[in-house]
Amino acid sequence: MKIETKVEKFNEPLYLESGRLLESFELIYETYGELNKDKSNVIIVCHALSGSHHAAGRYADEAKPGWWDKFIGDGKAIDTTKYFVICSNTIGSSYGSTNPLSINPSTKTEYRLKFPVITISDIVKAQMKLYERLGIKNAVAVVGGSMGGMQALCYSIEYPNFAKHIIALATTAYTRPWVIGINKIAIEAIRHDKIFNNGNYKKEDLKALGLPGLAVGRMAGLMMYLSPNLFKNKFGRDYVTTDGLYELFGRFEVEKYLEYNSYSFPKFFDPLSYLYICKTINIFDAGRNKDKLEDSFDKIQAKLHLIAFSDDMLFFPEEMEEIRDIMMKLGRKDQVTYKLINSNSGHDSFLVEVEKFQDYVKDILKDNE
Amino acid sequence: MKIETKVEKFNEPLYLESGRLLESFELIYETYGELNKDKSNVIIVCHALSGSHHAAGRYADEAKPGWWDKFIGDGKAIDTTKYFVICSNTIGSSYGSTNPLSINPSTKTEYRLKFPVITISDIVKAQMKLYERLGIKNAVAVVGGSMGGMQALCYSIEYPNFAKHIIALATTAYTRPWVIGINKIAIEAIRHDKIFNNGNYKKEDLKALGLPGLAVGRMAGLMMYLSPNLFKNKFGRDYVTTDGLYELFGRFEVEKYLEYNSYSFPKFFDPLSYLYICKTINIFDAGRNKDKLEDSFDKIQAKLHLIAFSDDMLFFPEEMEEIRDIMMKLGRKDQVTYKLINSNSGHDSFLVEVEKFQDYVKDILKDNE
Repeated sequence: MKIETKVEKFNEPLYLESGRLLESFELIYETYGELNKDKSNVIIVCHALSGSHHAAGRYADEAKPGWWDKFIGDGKAIDTTKYFVICSNTIGSSYGSTNPLSINPSTKTEYRLKFPVITISDIVKAQMKLYERLGIKNAVAVVGGSMGGMQALCYSIEYPNFAKHIIALATTAYTRPWVIGINKIAIEAIRHDKIFNNGNYKKEDLKALGLPGLAVGRMAGLMMYLSPNLFKNKFGRDYVTTDGLYELFGRFEVEKYLEYNSYSFPKFFDPLSYLYICKTINIFDAGRNKDKLEDSFDKIQAKLHLIAFSDDMLFFPEEMEEIRDIMMKLGRKDQVTYKLINSNSGHDSFLVEVEKFQDYVKDILKDNE
Repeated sequence: MKIETKVEKFNEPLYLESGRLLESFELIYETYGELNKDKSNVIIVCHALSGSHHAAGRYADEAKPGWWDKFIGDGKAIDTTKYFVICSNTIGSSYGSTNPLSINPSTKTEYRLKFPVITISDIVKAQMKLYERLGIKNAVAVVGGSMGGMQALCYSIEYPNFAKHIIALATTAYTRPWVIGINKIAIEAIRHDKIFNNGNYKKEDLKALGLPGLAVGRMAGLMMYLSPNLFKNKFGRDYVTTDGLYELFGRFEVEKYLEYNSYSFPKFFDPLSYLYICKTINIFDAGRNKDKLEDSFDKIQAKLHLIAFSDDMLFFPEEMEEIRDIMMKLGRKDQVTYKLINSNSGHDSFLVEVEKFQDYVKDILKDNE
């Protein structure tokens, strides 16, 4: 599989949904496979909150491959021997696209808390400019889970002629107060962190000291990405053998796991990015500026494929079913499919239980061949 | 209804499950109704994490009555015209019983982080000493939800001849890693709080400054005490009208609610108590020191009544069903009842949806008359 990582700089304003603008912006993106002559073999992959443009493949210095490596590659469900796959880092994320730590061209200083709030629409608009520059007018499919699924839905509504298939996993048409509440834990934990210092933290401090507030927020996220049953099966009530049961800070294995996976997080993920992306997720509403959610979904021309996971504790299957029901109500029966996966890994199933939906996706794409 | 609040001091050691001891200890407790001559009309009520001995009634200066006032009172399910109800503040809790801010008799200073870890067994053992002093040898029932339900189960196993009926709501036989993970968010948020200062905080700072770490921990708790559907129905996607949608820290109504209910919490609940009680909950296991959980439940002589709530996100109905199944397996069919309430308020249903189980409890107690 051919992998390339590139940065594209746009010396033009990106007008944002908020009425503000980015004077210029950059997107970092990865591609997998090869673009065919008539540029008709493109599949767009969209990442989630803490994801990046590095969706597949493995670099020499990496312990783990890209986040959807099980799903994207030669002979895999998104088959890179056939398709040219593009995954770009979203605006606002700290993996290389324009984000709160980028230099504001007007002030020549980092945006920090002056960075504008970004919406899913803004993220997709920036991506469309990338495809335009690459001479790509259409995609076979747009695929994404969680916040990536929000982007996929946004493509289908705002650029109805762009993609033939929209494959949205573990996502929603509008973020419920449940998820907003989970994100609130992170927002408050970060805001009150001493090292965060109202957004004026030193970047070297993050690597040296971490950022407990972001770690705590991440911990709340991790809980919700997984599920009670997964926790039970993975950790049970095992206690860390070197810790005392009656020590106040003695730990169960589940606590050690959460510590390990959350305290490391601020070393590679920026707290301002986390705040901004939480906001992006919180204000996502496919029905905004419309009288009814139906009006948005009525614009869809693509075939919409919805994949939900039974033990998803973040975006519940009923949220996906609501989208299906809207499509049915609109008389778009032939334009929507819905699959409920009997999953065991909670929300993260879309990342780790690929074997349960890969054939379904293969069948969707076969329809194209 | 006659209400009395009293403090009882015990100048004798409380030997703890950990092997440590409290040289002396105090319990603050409330009673409702009147004790009959042969002291045969006692009902014990056990409180949860953030509860107190003030379970019912309303003092002149109070905005809200006691936490289970819907359930306990004249003519209510726990009828104080018939029963003498006792609710004591658990050891470790900061409402007046011996807790981490109490004076250690050995050192004449506050225990703070030198306070021993307390178990559910220890809490119940201290309560039994109170009843002994009051000349109470038996109870008609022990009733409690959540951590109060753990105490109720503990009574049935460790003091099998004490109560006729055990009524345990929204609880578990052993704390699952899911709840331990939720508590971990609070533990880490508190530990890293600047004001907490490794347990050496100034008490006046809590009232003046609050304690954001405890607030964040409480927020994680609040999410889990409620439920996704409750959030949806209560808040929807309503945005605070004075906040801007595209302000980074602009808030949805659900966020305002969480802020309000969590930032006020450290003003009346102590962070060290919170840490210690989380630990008490985390290490609760009715099967500890037994080969099998069955061995514990095999000791029960009381009638065990289990009430679960369908949308409880903290202690799931299947955890209560596991207890029922153990009782069935032990051939104790006549000694166990199980009721699943179709609830809409999540874990907190045991506090707020009393109308859905009050008749069930009345029927249980009628059996006694």
